[in-house]
Amino acid sequence: MSSFVVALDVGGTSMKGGLVSDTGVVLLTERRPTPRENGPEAVVEAIRTFVGDLAASGDGSPAGVGIAVPGLVDPGMALYSANIGWRDVPASAFCALDIPVVLGHDVQTGGLAESVIGAGRGVDDFLFLPIGTGIAGAMILRGAPYGGASGWGGEIGHIPVFPDGEQCACGQFGCLETYASAASVGRRYSLRSGQEGIRAEQVVASDDPLAIEVWDEAVEALSLALATYTLLLDPSVIVLGGGLAEAGPALFDPVRTRLVKRLAFRDAPPLVPAALGVDAGMLGAALLGWRAAGRGAIGGTWRLDVRSGPLVS
Amino acid sequence: MSSFVVALDVGGTSMKGGLVSDTGVVLLTERRPTPRENGPEAVVEAIRTFVGDLAASGDGSPAGVGIAVPGLVDPGMALYSANIGWRDVPASAFCALDIPVVLGHDVQTGGLAESVIGAGRGVDDFLFLPIGTGIAGAMILRGAPYGGASGWGGEIGHIPVFPDGEQCACGQFGCLETYASAASVGRRYSLRSGQEGIRAEQVVASDDPLAIEVWDEAVEALSLALATYTLLLDPSVIVLGGGLAEAGPALFDPVRTRLVKRLAFRDAPPLVPAALGVDAGMLGAALLGWRAAGRGAIGGTWRLDVRSGPLVS
Repeated sequence: MSSFVVALDVGGTSMKGGLVSDTGVVLLTERRPTPRENGPEAVVEAIRTFVGDLAASGDGSPAGVGIAVPGLVDPGMALYSANIGWRDVPASAFCALDIPVVLGHDVQTGGLAESVIGAGRGVDDFLFLPIGTGIAGAMILRGAPYGGASGWGGEIGHIPVFPDGEQCACGQFGCLETYASAASVGRRYSLRSGQEGIRAEQVVASDDPLAIEVWDEAVEALSLALATYTLLLDPSVIVLGGGLAEAGPALFDPVRTRLVKRLAFRDAPPLVPAALGVDAGMLGAALLGWRAAGRGAIGGTWRLDVRSGPLVS
Repeated sequence: MSSFVVALDVGGTSMKGGLVSDTGVVLLTERRPTPRENGPEAVVEAIRTFVGDLAASGDGSPAGVGIAVPGLVDPGMALYSANIGWRDVPASAFCALDIPVVLGHDVQTGGLAESVIGAGRGVDDFLFLPIGTGIAGAMILRGAPYGGASGWGGEIGHIPVFPDGEQCACGQFGCLETYASAASVGRRYSLRSGQEGIRAEQVVASDDPLAIEVWDEAVEALSLALATYTLLLDPSVIVLGGGLAEAGPALFDPVRTRLVKRLAFRDAPPLVPAALGVDAGMLGAALLGWRAAGRGAIGGTWRLDVRSGPLVS
């Protein structure tokens, strides 16, 4: 029996691939660029080549392949991605070998990994919210990622936290993402200060009053969105990930304080950092690969070193 | 085999009881006051008597009992209700007879009825939003009501639609309910106009500029909340019920227009009126009663007259 799967997390700029054993050992990882500028067919081709190369690097034939992709997706088909430009690409197109392939939504696949082997381990109902260039959430409900009626759920980055707020790149007004994504925090500070190219982590660390103001608005937007999520979906825990969660207490402390203050008749759920960092998507893809191989329950026994980091609550 | 169940919907002011056959025929209904002012034990006693009287009115012994109650509840226990004042009342306390009893959350039980025999029939993922004195939602996800990790989910009436808005009776600021419940629409108009005791339906029908303003704010609050729900949970449909939904096009048309306008990158789900009106809770309780009797799948074949009303979409 094959003892490893091929796992691939396809992002807008790069792809992270790996081989993961049935005991949760990451045998190798590799990163390659996503050739998005060459069109969707080039991306499909690059994925197929990457999967083939990874498979050939293993000892024997892989048991399955799991691939996390952006956009609208079901297990057998990448239905649509505005970012990559593809439509209705069958899972089999991503793999030239005769091996079962399962696809997953990128954020939901990261949420699956946090659920099975990460910060949400043992928790049936939680929100996984990676805050990076953009913001989208994975809702884990009754133990499984929930994508909504048609797969478009989890767009917490575009809920209107400030009804009369700034216009978002998406066209809507007052979206969480336009205030609180890492990209937005940098952009909004650069705009106010006149200094180009300031990154979010610089804004968080700065004591410039303009930086404090921009960060304060990001925190306020996040606490509003999390209050709304809590009141609607009553999660056991909220897991914050992505680049901005690296800010640690500078993010968690003020968001927690304001979330508690926003809620009058119920407790706030604990806010905890994601456990798997940038590997969540690839590790979730590995779980999908084992699901493809008919061994979907396998991850429950995995112990990953990334889990040994301290939890902040 | 018994061919009917006892169904009871316990509200803060009155209780609606009924006997419902296994073919969905409502054999009788009766309304009694909820003696809330006499304390929680008096309410339990009143429910037990009501259930006994209803059971005795049937032809033979009932197959089961279903009871919808407010607050936090699981199938075997009414855990907590601020409104009624009880804590940890076992289902058996509501019925002196040796018949299986299942309890349900009031709004979720109404949502269950809309799901199985009402406006959400055949739809796996939708929001049931009754707008009455207060506002709470039942989220039907993957075909079943979802109450969150601990049963406190669905509090869409208390999400902060206007972050700097008016203080709600709950203590929070800018809650949907404080702008858009039937009670709030009446109260806010009375406050501005100096006219006491104006009801929501009068505000909706009025061409007084103050009434138009109050109604406009209610519509704006609703469209923001529904945009948020749509972006997060991607429902197939949103079912509006409760007293305010009786306003018909005066509610549905402007809310639909603004919901569509709020959403830039995805379609709005259809807004449809609830099919079961004020009977949703009692009919849902009947489904729970049949569940208690081990015949939970029974409702799928029921055809109720209330379903024959036209759907507005």
